[in-house]
Amino acid sequence: MIIDIHGHFTTTPPAHQSFRDAQLGWLADPQSSQPALPDISDDEVRESIENNQLKILRERGGDLMLFSPKASGMEHHVPDQAAATVWAQACNDLVHRVAKLFPDNFAGVCQLPQTPGGSLDDSIAELRRCVETLGFVGCNLNPDPSGGHWTSKPMTDEFWFPLYEVLVELDVPAMVHVSASCNPNFHSLGAHYLNADTSVFMQLVQGDLFGRFPDLRFVIPHGGGAVPYHWGRFRGLADRLGRPPLHGHVMSNVFFDTSVYHQAGIDLLAEVIDLDNILFASEMLGAVRGVDPESGHHWDDTKRYVDNLDLDAVQRRQLFELNARRVYPRLDAQLTAAGK
Amino acid sequence: MIIDIHGHFTTTPPAHQSFRDAQLGWLADPQSSQPALPDISDDEVRESIENNQLKILRERGGDLMLFSPKASGMEHHVPDQAAATVWAQACNDLVHRVAKLFPDNFAGVCQLPQTPGGSLDDSIAELRRCVETLGFVGCNLNPDPSGGHWTSKPMTDEFWFPLYEVLVELDVPAMVHVSASCNPNFHSLGAHYLNADTSVFMQLVQGDLFGRFPDLRFVIPHGGGAVPYHWGRFRGLADRLGRPPLHGHVMSNVFFDTSVYHQAGIDLLAEVIDLDNILFASEMLGAVRGVDPESGHHWDDTKRYVDNLDLDAVQRRQLFELNARRVYPRLDAQLTAAGK
Repeated sequence: MIIDIHGHFTTTPPAHQSFRDAQLGWLADPQSSQPALPDISDDEVRESIENNQLKILRERGGDLMLFSPKASGMEHHVPDQAAATVWAQACNDLVHRVAKLFPDNFAGVCQLPQTPGGSLDDSIAELRRCVETLGFVGCNLNPDPSGGHWTSKPMTDEFWFPLYEVLVELDVPAMVHVSASCNPNFHSLGAHYLNADTSVFMQLVQGDLFGRFPDLRFVIPHGGGAVPYHWGRFRGLADRLGRPPLHGHVMSNVFFDTSVYHQAGIDLLAEVIDLDNILFASEMLGAVRGVDPESGHHWDDTKRYVDNLDLDAVQRRQLFELNARRVYPRLDAQLTAAGK
Repeated sequence: MIIDIHGHFTTTPPAHQSFRDAQLGWLADPQSSQPALPDISDDEVRESIENNQLKILRERGGDLMLFSPKASGMEHHVPDQAAATVWAQACNDLVHRVAKLFPDNFAGVCQLPQTPGGSLDDSIAELRRCVETLGFVGCNLNPDPSGGHWTSKPMTDEFWFPLYEVLVELDVPAMVHVSASCNPNFHSLGAHYLNADTSVFMQLVQGDLFGRFPDLRFVIPHGGGAVPYHWGRFRGLADRLGRPPLHGHVMSNVFFDTSVYHQAGIDLLAEVIDLDNILFASEMLGAVRGVDPESGHHWDDTKRYVDNLDLDAVQRRQLFELNARRVYPRLDAQLTAAGK
């Protein structure tokens, strides 16, 4: 079984984005009236998936995708908490419909209604709703709700602890994932995403978050940002800073995905990071679409690169399936209940 | 000949930092008097180098280092322009003394007196002084003088053009190098430096700076941040954004150094980046000091990793010497004049 732990609903029916546009218009003009939630049919949801993520998942030999709302669309930089909550609910409800329509192929990962400097109360409530009521198996957590201004506390700060307590209680991991950049220095897909991955990893090296929360788990996407390429730097910095070795400290609780779009990158990832810490993912339909003219294959067809690794059948199953079932125990429970 | 293009004067005689401390104290208390520049003897300068960078350079088989002030000590976030200028001059003058005392082993690369949102006039004047009067061969340019708040314009913005015109006129490259992070989200060495490398590269992909300045050259240190590891992502993003292929566009003017502290990282760098675009460097004494317990060698002994690459003698000379002489023509002129 091949589980892709990082897919986004970037192909929502147009009424979904129209609602968001209307909501932002309403926030900008308090004289206007709050828009109603859109009416989207099952056929529209089905079509938006069957012709996109599901089609591609099947073509590439994948079975199941952990599916979350479009990351750049989370837009946590918009400060209105009530609007953020309505928007997160709308996005998560749409993901839930996909998971209900295609239960064999999609499981939900939720967006949280974060705001810059705002309370985490609504995020905790939405996490509970998605996991306990909708059957989601994880969440995306944004370390920088400001969208590239980085005004939040580091993720090792106790500000985040109430959310971590619920993540541990529910036994779901968080993928560390920023949203769109509002800072012109950072292209969202080509800089902000990768910088966030790198920055949070280093925060975890500096701190001792997993000493306080030994059961908390973070997935750092996009192959761990710059971290595996600079593995020697991070190992050396841990030593210089008097922190424990990465193995047995941060890497007991952190996992990197395989959203790296060329063979040399995947080769390096598999060479320096323990197989236990690597989760198969494509990020599709995400940052990079289209075909690499050099290889003739889609950039984000990461299964091709992973297939080229020198892994035996046991290792392959670990990377493609078992690691995901271990890091996402609620997914494992659902699959087991379905006889998988 | 082996040229290390990225070394910092992180071992200055104590009076230098004491002066800086006094200067910051004076800025904090306008009632106090401006400190005088310190009196540092040649013996002190000599000792600070002979027991550190020069000793290590020789031990590892290096010949010459491009030497710049301590990067985290530039502290461009301090807004007082006059103080920034005095501090940059003091730092550069000390580097110049090293280059004069050890002309066979060190050539100067200057710090610029940047400030957050400040004019570039003093930076241009200091660049001219260092290159035209002191014989420096390059400069370090900070894309984020705010120190982790990223309040500046992207490096493709015309704000930077007056400086670029002088870089082109003087025919010296700029190394893109931030200073210490004032943002607790970003560890200086483990996040901010790498993020800056990645962010500026993506700015260059988005823009067309080298169409406007075809002779401008940037060195992106720390192995290019996250870029080579995500080379497929950047190639794919260039395509998706309708930008030209990286080869022939950005990579005509951008060079990555080898400050990557493990074999797998150097292997990847050499695999995906053209040899023409790789400059040998160690960043010592820099981010990561000490010995890797796994290998028994210093993390930043990057020559070991490069020596393990499958390169013939011509390619080795290109990476260790000729690329540096091409990217730093004033260095080449000095070496040629010295019969090297």
